[in-house]
Amino acid sequence: MLPLPFSGITTFARSTHVPVNECGGVLAGDKPRIAVLGVPYDSATSSRSGARFGPRGIREASLLLWGYNNVQKVAPFEKLDVFDAGDADVVPVDIRATYASIEMATSTILSGGYRQLTLGGDHSILLPLLRAHAKKYGPLAVVHFDAHPDTWDLEYENQPYSHGTPCRRAIEEGLIDVEAYFQIGIRGPTGGPEDYQDALKLGARMVTYEEYRRLGAKNLLPEIHACVGPRPLYVTFDIDAVDPAYAPATGTPEVGGLTSYEAIELVRGLKGLNMVGCDIVEVAPPFDHAGITSILAANLGFEFLSLWAMQPGR
Amino acid sequence: MLPLPFSGITTFARSTHVPVNECGGVLAGDKPRIAVLGVPYDSATSSRSGARFGPRGIREASLLLWGYNNVQKVAPFEKLDVFDAGDADVVPVDIRATYASIEMATSTILSGGYRQLTLGGDHSILLPLLRAHAKKYGPLAVVHFDAHPDTWDLEYENQPYSHGTPCRRAIEEGLIDVEAYFQIGIRGPTGGPEDYQDALKLGARMVTYEEYRRLGAKNLLPEIHACVGPRPLYVTFDIDAVDPAYAPATGTPEVGGLTSYEAIELVRGLKGLNMVGCDIVEVAPPFDHAGITSILAANLGFEFLSLWAMQPGR
Amino acid sequence: MLPLPFSGITTFARSTHVPVNECGGVLAGDKPRIAVLGVPYDSATSSRSGARFGPRGIREASLLLWGYNNVQKVAPFEKLDVFDAGDADVVPVDIRATYASIEMATSTILSGGYRQLTLGGDHSILLPLLRAHAKKYGPLAVVHFDAHPDTWDLEYENQPYSHGTPCRRAIEEGLIDVEAYFQIGIRGPTGGPEDYQDALKLGARMVTYEEYRRLGAKNLLPEIHACVGPRPLYVTFDIDAVDPAYAPATGTPEVGGLTSYEAIELVRGLKGLNMVGCDIVEVAPPFDHAGITSILAANLGFEFLSLWAMQPGR
Amino acid sequence: MLPLPFSGITTFARSTHVPVNECGGVLAGDKPRIAVLGVPYDSATSSRSGARFGPRGIREASLLLWGYNNVQKVAPFEKLDVFDAGDADVVPVDIRATYASIEMATSTILSGGYRQLTLGGDHSILLPLLRAHAKKYGPLAVVHFDAHPDTWDLEYENQPYSHGTPCRRAIEEGLIDVEAYFQIGIRGPTGGPEDYQDALKLGARMVTYEEYRRLGAKNLLPEIHACVGPRPLYVTFDIDAVDPAYAPATGTPEVGGLTSYEAIELVRGLKGLNMVGCDIVEVAPPFDHAGITSILAANLGFEFLSLWAMQPGR
Amino acid sequence: MLPLPFSGITTFARSTHVPVNECGGVLAGDKPRIAVLGVPYDSATSSRSGARFGPRGIREASLLLWGYNNVQKVAPFEKLDVFDAGDADVVPVDIRATYASIEMATSTILSGGYRQLTLGGDHSILLPLLRAHAKKYGPLAVVHFDAHPDTWDLEYENQPYSHGTPCRRAIEEGLIDVEAYFQIGIRGPTGGPEDYQDALKLGARMVTYEEYRRLGAKNLLPEIHACVGPRPLYVTFDIDAVDPAYAPATGTPEVGGLTSYEAIELVRGLKGLNMVGCDIVEVAPPFDHAGITSILAANLGFEFLSLWAMQPGR
Amino acid sequence: MLPLPFSGITTFARSTHVPVNECGGVLAGDKPRIAVLGVPYDSATSSRSGARFGPRGIREASLLLWGYNNVQKVAPFEKLDVFDAGDADVVPVDIRATYASIEMATSTILSGGYRQLTLGGDHSILLPLLRAHAKKYGPLAVVHFDAHPDTWDLEYENQPYSHGTPCRRAIEEGLIDVEAYFQIGIRGPTGGPEDYQDALKLGARMVTYEEYRRLGAKNLLPEIHACVGPRPLYVTFDIDAVDPAYAPATGTPEVGGLTSYEAIELVRGLKGLNMVGCDIVEVAPPFDHAGITSILAANLGFEFLSLWAMQPGR
Repeated sequence: MLPLPFSGITTFARSTHVPVNECGGVLAGDKPRIAVLGVPYDSATSSRSGARFGPRGIREASLLLWGYNNVQKVAPFEKLDVFDAGDADVVPVDIRATYASIEMATSTILSGGYRQLTLGGDHSILLPLLRAHAKKYGPLAVVHFDAHPDTWDLEYENQPYSHGTPCRRAIEEGLIDVEAYFQIGIRGPTGGPEDYQDALKLGARMVTYEEYRRLGAKNLLPEIHACVGPRPLYVTFDIDAVDPAYAPATGTPEVGGLTSYEAIELVRGLKGLNMVGCDIVEVAPPFDHAGITSILAANLGFEFLSLWAMQPGR
Repeated sequence: MLPLPFSGITTFARSTHVPVNECGGVLAGDKPRIAVLGVPYDSATSSRSGARFGPRGIREASLLLWGYNNVQKVAPFEKLDVFDAGDADVVPVDIRATYASIEMATSTILSGGYRQLTLGGDHSILLPLLRAHAKKYGPLAVVHFDAHPDTWDLEYENQPYSHGTPCRRAIEEGLIDVEAYFQIGIRGPTGGPEDYQDALKLGARMVTYEEYRRLGAKNLLPEIHACVGPRPLYVTFDIDAVDPAYAPATGTPEVGGLTSYEAIELVRGLKGLNMVGCDIVEVAPPFDHAGITSILAANLGFEFLSLWAMQPGR
Repeated sequence: MLPLPFSGITTFARSTHVPVNECGGVLAGDKPRIAVLGVPYDSATSSRSGARFGPRGIREASLLLWGYNNVQKVAPFEKLDVFDAGDADVVPVDIRATYASIEMATSTILSGGYRQLTLGGDHSILLPLLRAHAKKYGPLAVVHFDAHPDTWDLEYENQPYSHGTPCRRAIEEGLIDVEAYFQIGIRGPTGGPEDYQDALKLGARMVTYEEYRRLGAKNLLPEIHACVGPRPLYVTFDIDAVDPAYAPATGTPEVGGLTSYEAIELVRGLKGLNMVGCDIVEVAPPFDHAGITSILAANLGFEFLSLWAMQPGR
Repeated sequence: MLPLPFSGITTFARSTHVPVNECGGVLAGDKPRIAVLGVPYDSATSSRSGARFGPRGIREASLLLWGYNNVQKVAPFEKLDVFDAGDADVVPVDIRATYASIEMATSTILSGGYRQLTLGGDHSILLPLLRAHAKKYGPLAVVHFDAHPDTWDLEYENQPYSHGTPCRRAIEEGLIDVEAYFQIGIRGPTGGPEDYQDALKLGARMVTYEEYRRLGAKNLLPEIHACVGPRPLYVTFDIDAVDPAYAPATGTPEVGGLTSYEAIELVRGLKGLNMVGCDIVEVAPPFDHAGITSILAANLGFEFLSLWAMQPGR
Repeated sequence: MLPLPFSGITTFARSTHVPVNECGGVLAGDKPRIAVLGVPYDSATSSRSGARFGPRGIREASLLLWGYNNVQKVAPFEKLDVFDAGDADVVPVDIRATYASIEMATSTILSGGYRQLTLGGDHSILLPLLRAHAKKYGPLAVVHFDAHPDTWDLEYENQPYSHGTPCRRAIEEGLIDVEAYFQIGIRGPTGGPEDYQDALKLGARMVTYEEYRRLGAKNLLPEIHACVGPRPLYVTFDIDAVDPAYAPATGTPEVGGLTSYEAIELVRGLKGLNMVGCDIVEVAPPFDHAGITSILAANLGFEFLSLWAMQPGR
Repeated sequence: MLPLPFSGITTFARSTHVPVNECGGVLAGDKPRIAVLGVPYDSATSSRSGARFGPRGIREASLLLWGYNNVQKVAPFEKLDVFDAGDADVVPVDIRATYASIEMATSTILSGGYRQLTLGGDHSILLPLLRAHAKKYGPLAVVHFDAHPDTWDLEYENQPYSHGTPCRRAIEEGLIDVEAYFQIGIRGPTGGPEDYQDALKLGARMVTYEEYRRLGAKNLLPEIHACVGPRPLYVTFDIDAVDPAYAPATGTPEVGGLTSYEAIELVRGLKGLNMVGCDIVEVAPPFDHAGITSILAANLGFEFLSLWAMQPGR
């Protein structure tokens, strides 16, 4: 008998709640350990706020996840020890204080031997996540699903940090290995031609949705595998990579994007890569209906866990 | 001049209301008779309740159906005598009493010479529907659209009946001809690998959404026709076979499913088979927006009627 | 610094989660212990289902509760040890199995020395709650807030149990001390004059909303205190006692009811009585907007806890 | 056992559907006959359209009406023969054609010996309703619940007919007996001081919400009774007389209005007057939430029926 | 730094507001001039009203449009002088008066040397738009995106004008060059086979969605280019051409339609044609969720502007 | 003929748009000038974000405001020159930069001889508003409508500025004349007894909702007038002073608050005081339904303008 989705306390997929500051070595078992960390921060969004409720929405939807992945043929919750680390502290009025908190929480978790699946929050949180991961793993290959390149220099006057700039900052700080940085799903109007040009100049392999339609997963995935190889890989999934029909609950929706099937197919195709960290961001439940965006995000989280469960040596 | 969709009493497609207990021979004309029966029962759902409002929602949406099917080139309301039999009695607290009521209502209707299009209600109602149909037609070929196999043994402790078990019960009772039992659209996490294995062991030809994408309608439909042949066919359509972007209003949505176009194309492709009964279930209007799920369900009902209108001798 | 309402795991008011089966003596401190138990069952509703999401909705809203009650001048979370016992097991298709589970969970909690605040669920759950409480405390004085008397004999054919019958069953079983049974907020159309007459015959002191408007809290509360005196008191609060403008998210709303202020004022006025158990039922979040019904329910829970915190000897 | 509110075909309170053109004498029984007529027309609204769905929304909500009025102590569906006449034909692009249709339908119904409860539709429909009633009964005393006087001369250039002008037109046509014309609930900004002045000049006894608060029902109702006396009375209830907290689903909401309790108390207080017709208008379900506006409107309809059921000789 | 989408006054894409009657020559610069005109009229809809809020909804969503079109490689707001002309006067109760107003406003704008992007409003407004454009340009090639042919003769008794008839009226009046009239996206039930036959007889090249799926954009677009050639082209985009999953906010949704990507791809493919006017109609924001329909409509507007910006000599 | 509320560009009540930096003396007429300034900042909220859409929501609702105040008997748009100054620049990630921008914009406006009605935004914006006003007028009497005292010292660690602290900061900075500082509508749980005690120590005259119910407007208003006298008065209206039934769209709703009628009555009662500035904050449209909160806020704005229009010498 499986537990009823409408019943019980809403940790991620009913995993045990272990607060961040208890993510030391004490819980060590034989299985690889995963911590799910929420980051309920949305003060860096440029259009609709609401992603602060992302972790809660995704956790609630995650109770619909039965445990077995029929396509990947793996049961991630059996292969892994998954814990819910709750939410990082955030300071809505101060992005620098928030960044410090996120980085510290993530570093604590990583130092405890966990890998971390992060639930955002707006995309500004990527920077401290990459800081913590790069500190441990060195510069990271990155697969970045998004409608927007997020490589702006300044989105708000004099403000280096926002949800449109984290990838540029990360490259400047040497956190991203630009030899292996994919942007997938990019589309929609931009401020000018320089938006794309800048991303390319910074080293990104940008795959617009239009190009994805031409390539298909069957051509794109081998290119990613060939390029990333054994590098430590971080995957960041901005839910607005997906079309608003499938993911309405987000801050800056762009029409003409990935279907949910296409999104999941691409994530599944990352099997075999050395993913060391991942996140799902920009889910804004106040704009959802029937929970469909949160359900998609929860399923993406399940696919990420499945990838980890299939890693050799894991 | 067509009647205005926002006006009038909401029977299915403005058909005449004939309560179940009046579905005797008195209304017989020359045309084949169809009864549309609602079954507003949702106490067997494992996640979101709300399908008790399915019949009402679909009826309201059905007022948008003009009468001519341009793809099939048939006017079902001219070829058939369609009546709205209202709703079967249900007992929210007692599934056995509800089952008895559904079976009796359906048997009454079938014995009156009608064929029945049923509007659910959650999928648990399939069992008494199959009981009534098999009593008249013998074991039934079944085309079953769904995200889930519904062949669990027990979903709730000690409870043989629920919305996850009707197909196993039906097979155990000999209601389904397992030589011709298709499951289409299956996907998403399950409790374990045994969920799919059990369905296969029970005899189902399971077509996951992933396999459907590989086959396409052009390969799948001939396989169905070849297998089903002249057998009496029952078609059960759980709306969660469709992706939540197209059908958000359902109890246990699974991302990555059929589009509305794909769903309708498959139903249209059943033309020529000996369909003797059909249903549309798991539409939960409290979770709908802009009525899009109910509108899709009403159109599926229209396609079912069109299939009947094209049957030879009908 | 108070924790942020949008952050963290959603137990009731961030209380520690202690599953029902761990509600033994081990956690005993010096303070009175309270367990908050969810009962996510809604299969007995006669109109809109959805109350199965009541416990989750109220827990989420409870994160808005800061800890100090300025009117009662008490800090319940300091005076009491409040735990969240999670949700009782329920069986959507079987009310008797559900009743057994609720009664067992409640008895376990009560036998552990806790008092219990229950979050429903539809009002049918009152019966097993009263069974468990009466087993410990004997027949109970009851203050029952509701738009409906819930003293029907049969709501569904041959079914003694449903959300319209628990009070009659409880009286028949001797669980309610009919010398001290108040119904407050009753209003709206009924099946016939016998609905009210039956309640009166069974011994209820029925205070319709119309009578409440004439009496006011200042006359009604002394009457309750005079009648209840030192008896063990159970308070059951069906949220539809409140007007749908203030509590839209419920299954059978009745217009013309209590405002939220009036509801809270009445609950506060129970100060000094020997309340031994309480519940808040019929909150159906799928019909809420902006969470206002869940927020009201969470505040009612806070007022109940405040009553306990002010009990002499507690 | 009462029928379940979520089940069955949605005529008003499950009354028998008798189309307008069959409202002849054939159905005559011993009881007074009432026809409920929908008028789904909203092209005359000046702000939010949507009232075309008013009749459907109110019918659906009416299934929550059990049959006995406990305050008035009457069972209207036993005392009266209530029929649902369906909806009048309307022509969205042509208000004159719509007016002709409404007047004809109403005259047909009245000539069949019925009294008519009309469900709007926007308030422009009042004019043809009054035309038909005045043709039978002569100039009518009118009790008019509304936030707005609806006595504008022209709302749109060169257009005598709209939802802001019907009362002026009706007075000009001699349909209203201005010796007995009450406007209740008037409030909010107007185009200028002349809006109120004009209503007063035309003969209306305007009771603003502010004045109502001073008077109370206990003073206002006797004034109405004294003034109206035995005259034939028409009651028109624009739902925006009620505060948007209680009735959000309307086209031109005005804050600071009647509560649902106050509205119902006033309607109940019309007991004893010679009401010959009534309507409930401006319910716009697309703007409703949890159906609370439609539920209120259905209850107002129930109160109107109760008034008729208590008329001497009826 | 781009302006924040949630900030500022909501003209279309922050363009300068120039009321219609000021659209004379005074603002002339060197760039081609475009006026965006809203037409908030929805009294001709046959199902759900609400399109009167279309212009407002699309304007609000347009603030998400950054200025550069990465696929077409053009910055329309730099290449063009785009102004927001506000809304045409409409008369909800009188379609003829509304038609006169729309035609006059459009003629004023066209005579000022502007081209016009119109934001509806229901599709009935197409007729006066075509009248004004044909007066200037002669009979127009038309590319008409829609689920419905809109070539009915009469939708309401005796009413030549409604949202289902404008294309027939336009052909009768010689406004459309039927040698180059495409209907794209047609689907769903119709009143009978004559609905499609009539459109074909009138000269339309009807591309049903089913045919589009067979052809693809790569075959359809060359056919359009070959047929339209240098003729003056008017493009009318009824948002219900798009599937309700992507565009729920419309009056008469039909399942099984274009995705947003397909819609935009087709519009982009009109590059090189001599488009002289265009509109986006039937967006009904009260039925939207998360603004996804308005966002799609705003993007379609952006693509139309991009087409203009790429016209030679512009 | 009044303009149609669904038509046209949405400045506040259709007032002329004059950007902040043009608010110099050039527009000077004989009438007192008012600027309506939006401040779309919500990064300081502690619960639900969304108030960044407050200015837009209130502007849209303001189109329902006809121009004459029947209770106050004044036409504010005739007596005053009202302009819409658009929105102040905000920086979501930096509250200090936002504060500087708000203060500068407000100072510019005040120095142009305008008085300012501000539309928030969360309540943190009060501080720079008071800074700008106090710079011109000296320490201000303040009437502060709210459910919360907003006199916390620190809401987030080390952060002096947030939406729970502006009143303490303002008192510390000498901006508020604590001899005349009223808090009205305070209620709900707080962190501890010190929350209220601190407000009292700081000099506030706190009127909880419970006390308001005892006093009534008839006693409270004279107290305010007696205390404030001729001092320059600033009125800040946090919409959560109103009960969530009437104002659901806000970040930290508290049940049991003011009705809309009570709120407006109190504002009207400020007639005669020397109000020099005012605001309406914490309206969060993503949580609204049917626009009722925005409509209430727009009406409060209208009442503020009416107060100014009645000031002697204005």
